[in-house]
Amino acid sequence: MAEPYELYYWPILPGRGEFVRLVLEEAGVPYRDVARLPEEDGGGFKPLLAFMQGERPGQPAYAPPILVHGELVLAQSAAICAYLGERHGLAPAEPGKRMQALQLQLTIADVADEAHDTHHPINASLYYEDQKDAAHKASQHFLDQRLPRFLGYFERVLERSGRAWLMGDTLTYPDLSLFQLVEGLAYAFPKGFARAAEQTPLLLALRDRVAKRPRIAAYLASDRRLAFNEHGVFRHYPELDLGD
Amino acid sequence: MAEPYELYYWPILPGRGEFVRLVLEEAGVPYRDVARLPEEDGGGFKPLLAFMQGERPGQPAYAPPILVHGELVLAQSAAICAYLGERHGLAPAEPGKRMQALQLQLTIADVADEAHDTHHPINASLYYEDQKDAAHKASQHFLDQRLPRFLGYFERVLERSGRAWLMGDTLTYPDLSLFQLVEGLAYAFPKGFARAAEQTPLLLALRDRVAKRPRIAAYLASDRRLAFNEHGVFRHYPELDLGD
Repeated sequence: MAEPYELYYWPILPGRGEFVRLVLEEAGVPYRDVARLPEEDGGGFKPLLAFMQGERPGQPAYAPPILVHGELVLAQSAAICAYLGERHGLAPAEPGKRMQALQLQLTIADVADEAHDTHHPINASLYYEDQKDAAHKASQHFLDQRLPRFLGYFERVLERSGRAWLMGDTLTYPDLSLFQLVEGLAYAFPKGFARAAEQTPLLLALRDRVAKRPRIAAYLASDRRLAFNEHGVFRHYPELDLGD
Repeated sequence: MAEPYELYYWPILPGRGEFVRLVLEEAGVPYRDVARLPEEDGGGFKPLLAFMQGERPGQPAYAPPILVHGELVLAQSAAICAYLGERHGLAPAEPGKRMQALQLQLTIADVADEAHDTHHPINASLYYEDQKDAAHKASQHFLDQRLPRFLGYFERVLERSGRAWLMGDTLTYPDLSLFQLVEGLAYAFPKGFARAAEQTPLLLALRDRVAKRPRIAAYLASDRRLAFNEHGVFRHYPELDLGD
């Protein structure tokens, strides 16, 4: 299919859409980031809401990000990253290794979910201000117990790989997502992340290696890259960046 | 590869391992459910712990379930289900549709995670008894807002499919997982689930259709099938089954 890619995601936050953007950018393929385009170009919120309200044909999506590619309508960031990665040489070819790349992507998504749930432990549909006490407790446990284990896990994967990237000598889509995860955690919990990352030099080196990829470096310097903020998955609430 | 499958998962709860077992059972392939075998047959907790402590070669796993197939070590239930589904005719062949099946599987996993977090909103590593107040609030929001939306989503997918199964005329692995999700929600929240499911007749029909598959029916009647209990993802705490 030679149709261009269309990405539908909330325009004001990097969130889970950013995992998809990084694959598109590293692949060097053109895409329309629909909700960030002007309304007169068919952009804005409305085309995104049309999906959420079931007005567009194709497989229903529970939530954005949504990728449209010709007839294909695909949701779930890990599935979209796998789809794009496999099409553009950013995924292993062998079925077992292809699934191991997906395994890593899913664990990255799990960490992102837990990081999100530190500020929304009771429910995502309630305001942070209405669950601050629970958020305080959740953040403490996340920083004390979960974050060191999660970062240590990826460090171990890189140790076993023994190469530049998670899956060996070739960059694959979970490397890009792991970069975004590390950046997000460092933004949300500057103190807590710095403490845990003292034990994970390979992970920090991978983060730097991704940032220096020519296409990624150009993207990060462009206005296509959205800054982290307090609407997204990774939010910096200083009162939640606990510890000594 | 003609090597037999080995599944490593906690032996006392269905949990996320059950999504994998259902694919293995519907495929009709032999497998060793290692942690449930006697120690003298190489079973028990120890071989599972060897993975968790990094003593086994292969890609590290953050958590069970873990599938071993020859040289392949694969974690994350959605990745394992996709791997098995693709090998045994329980996944679409076309790349876009293959990813849509994965999309559905990931949304099922998201619902399972949220159902788990109703009893463990602050952190999975704390006891339920230490987060009961937050669990009460989380369950209320889950039953009032999230559950009807989630069930309604799968109902809409089945409506659009217009066929017996999520992806059309042929059963695929997310159908099996959706069965398990519905069974788990009905176990955990008998009142809350019954209320929400009044609006989702297609979903209930799919649940019944899966249960009647000859291999699944035989499995459900066997002692290989683990009953739901209060150690797993779906737990029945009557005080959390809220609403009128």
